[in-house]
Amino acid sequence: MEYPQESFVGTTFTPGSFWARRREVVRSQTLRHQLKMLKETGRYDAFKLKWHPSYDDPPTVYPVPNHQFWDSDVAKWIEGACYLLMDSFDSEIDAAVKELVQMIRGAQQPDGYLNIHYTVVEPGKRFTNLRDMHELYNAGHLIEAALAHHLYYKNDELLSPILKYVDLFVTTFGDQDGQLAGYPGHPEIELALLRLYKVTGDQKHLKLAQFFIEERGNQKGGKEQRPYYDVEAEARGENEHELPMCYPAARSYWYQQAHKPIAEQETIEGHSVRAMYLLTAVTDLVRIHEPTSETGTKFLPALHKLWSNMVEKKSYVTGGIGAIKKWEGFGIDYFLPQGTDEGGCYAETCAAIGVMMLAERLLRIELNSHYADIMELCMYNAVLTGMSLDGKAFTYVNQLASSDKDLSERYEWFECACCPPNVTRTLGFLGGYFWTHAISQQSAVVNVHMYTSATLSLKVSNSTLTVTQKTDWPWNGDVEFETRTEGPPVDLELRLRIPGWATSWEITPRLDNLKIENGYLHLSTEWLQQNSKFRLSCPMKPRFVRPNPLTMQPVAYVTRGPIVYCVEDIDHPWENQHFKRTILDLNATLKEEPQSEPDSYVAIVAENGVKGELDTSAWEGQIVAESSDEVSKSSKDLNYIPYYLRANRGGKGQMRVGLRVL
Amino acid sequence: MEYPQESFVGTTFTPGSFWARRREVVRSQTLRHQLKMLKETGRYDAFKLKWHPSYDDPPTVYPVPNHQFWDSDVAKWIEGACYLLMDSFDSEIDAAVKELVQMIRGAQQPDGYLNIHYTVVEPGKRFTNLRDMHELYNAGHLIEAALAHHLYYKNDELLSPILKYVDLFVTTFGDQDGQLAGYPGHPEIELALLRLYKVTGDQKHLKLAQFFIEERGNQKGGKEQRPYYDVEAEARGENEHELPMCYPAARSYWYQQAHKPIAEQETIEGHSVRAMYLLTAVTDLVRIHEPTSETGTKFLPALHKLWSNMVEKKSYVTGGIGAIKKWEGFGIDYFLPQGTDEGGCYAETCAAIGVMMLAERLLRIELNSHYADIMELCMYNAVLTGMSLDGKAFTYVNQLASSDKDLSERYEWFECACCPPNVTRTLGFLGGYFWTHAISQQSAVVNVHMYTSATLSLKVSNSTLTVTQKTDWPWNGDVEFETRTEGPPVDLELRLRIPGWATSWEITPRLDNLKIENGYLHLSTEWLQQNSKFRLSCPMKPRFVRPNPLTMQPVAYVTRGPIVYCVEDIDHPWENQHFKRTILDLNATLKEEPQSEPDSYVAIVAENGVKGELDTSAWEGQIVAESSDEVSKSSKDLNYIPYYLRANRGGKGQMRVGLRVL
Repeated sequence: MEYPQESFVGTTFTPGSFWARRREVVRSQTLRHQLKMLKETGRYDAFKLKWHPSYDDPPTVYPVPNHQFWDSDVAKWIEGACYLLMDSFDSEIDAAVKELVQMIRGAQQPDGYLNIHYTVVEPGKRFTNLRDMHELYNAGHLIEAALAHHLYYKNDELLSPILKYVDLFVTTFGDQDGQLAGYPGHPEIELALLRLYKVTGDQKHLKLAQFFIEERGNQKGGKEQRPYYDVEAEARGENEHELPMCYPAARSYWYQQAHKPIAEQETIEGHSVRAMYLLTAVTDLVRIHEPTSETGTKFLPALHKLWSNMVEKKSYVTGGIGAIKKWEGFGIDYFLPQGTDEGGCYAETCAAIGVMMLAERLLRIELNSHYADIMELCMYNAVLTGMSLDGKAFTYVNQLASSDKDLSERYEWFECACCPPNVTRTLGFLGGYFWTHAISQQSAVVNVHMYTSATLSLKVSNSTLTVTQKTDWPWNGDVEFETRTEGPPVDLELRLRIPGWATSWEITPRLDNLKIENGYLHLSTEWLQQNSKFRLSCPMKPRFVRPNPLTMQPVAYVTRGPIVYCVEDIDHPWENQHFKRTILDLNATLKEEPQSEPDSYVAIVAENGVKGELDTSAWEGQIVAESSDEVSKSSKDLNYIPYYLRANRGGKGQMRVGLRVL
Repeated sequence: MEYPQESFVGTTFTPGSFWARRREVVRSQTLRHQLKMLKETGRYDAFKLKWHPSYDDPPTVYPVPNHQFWDSDVAKWIEGACYLLMDSFDSEIDAAVKELVQMIRGAQQPDGYLNIHYTVVEPGKRFTNLRDMHELYNAGHLIEAALAHHLYYKNDELLSPILKYVDLFVTTFGDQDGQLAGYPGHPEIELALLRLYKVTGDQKHLKLAQFFIEERGNQKGGKEQRPYYDVEAEARGENEHELPMCYPAARSYWYQQAHKPIAEQETIEGHSVRAMYLLTAVTDLVRIHEPTSETGTKFLPALHKLWSNMVEKKSYVTGGIGAIKKWEGFGIDYFLPQGTDEGGCYAETCAAIGVMMLAERLLRIELNSHYADIMELCMYNAVLTGMSLDGKAFTYVNQLASSDKDLSERYEWFECACCPPNVTRTLGFLGGYFWTHAISQQSAVVNVHMYTSATLSLKVSNSTLTVTQKTDWPWNGDVEFETRTEGPPVDLELRLRIPGWATSWEITPRLDNLKIENGYLHLSTEWLQQNSKFRLSCPMKPRFVRPNPLTMQPVAYVTRGPIVYCVEDIDHPWENQHFKRTILDLNATLKEEPQSEPDSYVAIVAENGVKGELDTSAWEGQIVAESSDEVSKSSKDLNYIPYYLRANRGGKGQMRVGLRVL
């Protein structure tokens, strides 16, 4: 039982490689920038439990106070810092982590309670609104920070107070007399508790996570035999027509996936980050109990259904999820407009990070390249787009098309600042996503999910096994592998993911009996003993792909390997309508043009890719028109750049991923 | 200054003709059926002011009590009954009208107040919630009922108490000290007061309507210098997060077109019925003051903008308006899905009736065939579809496509029963929509907006002028005209609308110097003196039309003349997916097939109109796919019937107007 937040330590990204450079930016720039933001906004000092003037601000998203997430912002930063400190020591970051830990320790109440808002602003109201407030979410991030801290500092300075805090939860929540039969409005603590259980081995940590998961959505919960959120709302004296701003109607508990028990849910609904964090925990629970256990057979069918519903009917080409701004989440099946001027596109950065988490956990249960395809897609597109090249500007919402109201642009921070430090910590333990392994005695199985220049180093009994990849991925699909063992020989078996987008691929030296299972090429111990060096080639060609026609999106996207492309106004000075009327010619030749500025990448030029502009003059003053030709012809080139590179080079903030083909 | 509710008396529909038959069904069946419904549901006796058990029911759409509209349901039925009694006396209907009028008289309070809910259920709370409650809306319908009653019975039995009620409003509302500077959440009383003013000539009636219109949306209204709805909400002690169910967010006053003054509104927003009733009144106000007056120049630009925004960007092919169920109204520009499974389609019957009202009023200000085109479109499609052929079943929502969740089906009544009696009264005074006229001394100008077999009879000085049309419209575009004068000769000028859908047309005998202005063919007195009989021919051919490409609807519709067609499962036993995957071949030949069952109409067969079924198998388990051919081929005929005839012949309730073309 392992997690990428731990397994990543085995991975070393080759200096100068794609991800080494990104992580270096985060280490040298982002951590400092975010530390500055934490300090300027009051978050850094908040655990000192003094009053901050912003505590008086009315909530932007009623009823959640704007500072409600501060605990988690700090916790995620600490978590990310600890991961990155392992790369190289940084005294400024180290000092800040240590100071924050001391402030957190100092903020803990005698009974273990540890939350800024309910200690400073509303003392006495703790645990009265699990539905809307983020006490347990914050606690989950504190647990994850403590685990990262423990991993790097190898002491209990943070873990120890957090364990005391968790003990308070163990006492408070459950189905026993005197306990609250509640569960968090925003899942996170579940997955954190399960990770904690791995370290402590303490059954109470597993049990509490399992309670939160099993009880969620119980319509006859607690001794009141009613939904818990109703019970606590009445206890608060809440008027039944008093709605949280993100609720479309009273008691829309599908917003937080609590409208029915998880095992009975058939479609993915509500807030997308909550959904991903929750299902990640559910997958972990299934893994802990084994998929064939009672818990496993209870939840696994729901996991499959919800995942499929999400991928087939509620995901964007970038891997982004969530069309609806109001509840930051999923719309109805196939409702996937590209921008707010067409009905919405949210695709929050944190949600895509959640998809990566869930995909990675599912891969550990079922080695199927489909999950890794989605994980890779999110990583290079919906997640990576969330941070600028200089590491100091971020996006929260990742639309596929800009509009006058919502330009394609970045911000240095957010009032609700969940995304920036989430990218930081994700980049921090990124190595954990590339491969998983199983070791038993003198043998090892390594599943390679994604490719980059990096080395995995594993201790196998008294030997050290290394698997090294060398590649210019995601720009070139050739990957040179080398395996080595120091010490007694190790029986290594490798499984290499064949990407779903690869229309052809090759392994050199040639393998005579190909064994491919669920999209993974199995390389046997015997073959690897003969071939310690080999090459996997997955040629990358630019291509046009289309969304499901049921999305009613008459568009095509340009992709190449795992990269999704977009067009920006800066490369098309003639454009001022966000490419909304630009008609793409699917017969255009897609030419690759390697670039070195603002970073190395492969640009794509669609030669004469513009067939013309959509002409809607026939509809002036009309509802309908008899029209056969809606295009005013004018051939022009289209210059595509990777979506994740958008909003890095100036311009007017006009951008589009999918261009009309008719 | 005339209204169709008065001018209709000059029109006699030729027995056996299209509209004569429809009106006969309403007279003989619908009035009785609805009377039965009024009695069974408690509405009929409600003005007796006794408690009804349903008054205890919690509101289906908080905070509006379900019985809130009962006054208006009764009023609209009385109004319709009075119009139809003019066709032929009916003792049962007459007796019911008289009894209702006595009950209404008896329900009036000493100070003139006259409302069921606030007399029986919440006495003492009158005028405390203009925003959500329907006191003034109900009063508006009572005024309209009184005007119809007065027209038919030629006594003041109903008008007299209503005038007393209006006097109470005159005292209560206004900008003087001690008055409420409020305006109704649901417009209706404004247009009713302006109609009343025509009859009474009393300036106070004009002044009150003008106050409601001018004050609406005033952000610095009343002595509080704040929006009135905020002021009254606070006076009620309303929590600012307590939301009416139809509100997407607190204080979404655009829901009732009160987010800013009407003259400053640039796009049509919110509840579609409210918007149409309001703009109808605004148009009347402009007409009363003359378009060139200060009031005219203030409001006319807004009327133009709002109308254009509605027609070009927020109307369905049927003339129906409103995509969003939550607020029964307009979505963002070009968001016009066909059914709830694609994001919504509301197109309430009452809203289409409102479009007819507004179009008719605009025609009286500006004779432009564009308005009449939309009026005719609504009449034959979005309105007529609201009632079954037998006159006893109705629709409230008029989707363009069914789905498993929302079948295409009719109901005998609704909890909120605004639509059924609205169709009744509209059919009652329908003649008023066909033509408008101006008479001065011995001359007359008649504008013919729509065609049917009917005679318009006008008193011109001491002469009687008749204009007769004979046609099989909407199935045949040939219209025979005959004009006659009894008594001294009258200088008649005719203006005939040339329908926007007519790709060609002809007048016989031939006119040498055609004068066409804004889509109306002018026939001079001289020509008419030489040609008392003539024929207008507007050939009707079935054709495919398309929505604006910015709607992202890759579909085509079949229309013929003013009629919009649909397909139903009963004619296509092979269909069970609501025609969602049926691919239409735009090269198919459209063949006309006159039918006599269940009524006379022209069916359209698209020979081999089915090109195949949409094949989305390439997207199974995928977000995107490289796909060039998404159609599994299989040629079949498609049988189109007029949309208004849907849900009259049984079947599974599967129906679609726009079929995919790709």
